[in-house]
Amino acid sequence: MGERITIAETVAWLKGRDSFLILTHRRPDGDTVGCAGALAQGLREIGKTAYVLMNPEITPRYARFVDDYWAPDGFTPEHVIAVDTASRTLFPQNIGDYADSISLTIDHHPSNSCYAELTCLTDAATCGETIYEILIELSGTISAKSADSLYAAVTTDTGCFVFANTTANSLRVAASLIDSGARHRALNKLLFRTKTRSRISIESLIYSGLEYHFDGAVAISTITKEMMESANATEDDVDDIAALPGSIEGVLAGITIRELSSPQDCKVSVRTSQSVDAHLISAHFGGGGHKLAAGFNMKKTVDEVKKELLEWLKEFFPPEAAANA
Amino acid sequence: MGERITIAETVAWLKGRDSFLILTHRRPDGDTVGCAGALAQGLREIGKTAYVLMNPEITPRYARFVDDYWAPDGFTPEHVIAVDTASRTLFPQNIGDYADSISLTIDHHPSNSCYAELTCLTDAATCGETIYEILIELSGTISAKSADSLYAAVTTDTGCFVFANTTANSLRVAASLIDSGARHRALNKLLFRTKTRSRISIESLIYSGLEYHFDGAVAISTITKEMMESANATEDDVDDIAALPGSIEGVLAGITIRELSSPQDCKVSVRTSQSVDAHLISAHFGGGGHKLAAGFNMKKTVDEVKKELLEWLKEFFPPEAAANA
Repeated sequence: MGERITIAETVAWLKGRDSFLILTHRRPDGDTVGCAGALAQGLREIGKTAYVLMNPEITPRYARFVDDYWAPDGFTPEHVIAVDTASRTLFPQNIGDYADSISLTIDHHPSNSCYAELTCLTDAATCGETIYEILIELSGTISAKSADSLYAAVTTDTGCFVFANTTANSLRVAASLIDSGARHRALNKLLFRTKTRSRISIESLIYSGLEYHFDGAVAISTITKEMMESANATEDDVDDIAALPGSIEGVLAGITIRELSSPQDCKVSVRTSQSVDAHLISAHFGGGGHKLAAGFNMKKTVDEVKKELLEWLKEFFPPEAAANA
Repeated sequence: MGERITIAETVAWLKGRDSFLILTHRRPDGDTVGCAGALAQGLREIGKTAYVLMNPEITPRYARFVDDYWAPDGFTPEHVIAVDTASRTLFPQNIGDYADSISLTIDHHPSNSCYAELTCLTDAATCGETIYEILIELSGTISAKSADSLYAAVTTDTGCFVFANTTANSLRVAASLIDSGARHRALNKLLFRTKTRSRISIESLIYSGLEYHFDGAVAISTITKEMMESANATEDDVDDIAALPGSIEGVLAGITIRELSSPQDCKVSVRTSQSVDAHLISAHFGGGGHKLAAGFNMKKTVDEVKKELLEWLKEFFPPEAAANA
């Protein structure tokens, strides 16, 4: 296992070296991408060579924060740095041999397996806050370009400060990034205040079909292929949509049943509040996850899945409530 | 017109007096209610008598921030203070004679008509930030109780920091309120992460009726009394719903037409992005507000309002675009 180092040691390590390749995790989110872009930019600003390894799963939403830093073909780094990535299994497929030679990981996940030679691990709400500290120590300042990327990192990982992980530090770092030139209005609009027409359409269809069970303790939303086609919706449009039924007042378990490639193939997402274990619900069907967010796949139709699930959910919700459902 | 005073002068004025009645505006939102609760609490903490005038339109969502401060029957204040209220016409109906004897108004609306003897007007994003400054100067500290109320004020008026009015100061004040004990996780869940079933229903109805004009640059949503009844929706359920049409990709002006007590009585909310002036759009119909958020009332039916508005909007959107709408 690798050695743990402090922010100051991380900064000293970066200052004393050159030629860096930065890795992001698969299914890249705003935090990993914003951190990679900001770190590459910050390193370049003090005269270093720094690139980000192309992430084949990058989406248009986040590409703008790393597009200027993709490593060109043939670039051979001296040092490989991973950001916001808790374990070696989370890298994209094109990681290749780099997976075995990671010099430094900068992260905020308590579950980080210390897979790199050196690990700079903090308890910050977002990895962006840690990169912010590193850049401030590295050069005493944050450029407007890095500020944009870090603002994206901090806000996307906290749902623009609404998720339970948000801390006073998240807010202060964001305030400082705005002072450094982060275009928070444009970024908020882009990242949090814009819904495509297709997203509006698919939400409308989902709302119409919402079902409540067990006295309103369970809400089930269904997304069929037909609905997706009718709304002209893409995968981007249904990003995070599994959170929807769980956000309804009184709902303890929010279930989303998504019809996949065939009518006999469904993906089920389970989101719960503290009193119900989403992992337990899902494990019964061969799935898993965390206590508040889990899921499973089932080779059955939406109606069959719903029936089996409702039967199993009787174990979690008292029969009196079920009788009133 | 009244005299403008600074925060320091406001604090000196408060310190030198006693027996305050605090007024909120009609259709009370989190900012006016949170400010009233926090100011009453802060004044009580330095030994003053302070109450909030009952607001008959208060909703359960925000009542928790002022319930401890409602003025008892027969309370006769020496000084009346209005918070977050830009003009005399915005008070609830039970204001009575107080409307003519307001000593001080503390506000952040540029349109404040200086109707009070003294006006403490700032350019803060939220009135909560101004009350925060006042309380800090008043006693050097913010109690956990005031912190909760001010956190509600700052977050509801900025959409939890996502609206374009958000500044670095909004974020720093919120960070400081968390340090003072504001229960931001519980408040975020309550204010931003929970939707009632009725809210879901009314959103579904609104989505179904959305209209796009001027090549998608304008989106109009309509909320009729019938829709409200069918969704079993309360005022709380449609709080901030005016932001909805403006959040659609490509929309520069999001308009919400709300049918009020009669079919001949509508309230129109206008939300725009930087390139369009919501205040200008609204002023034409006798309303007003800020550049990005304004509104007006009209004694006409939804269809009549829509027709007149679309006619006026031609001034703001190029005719070529209109031709394609």
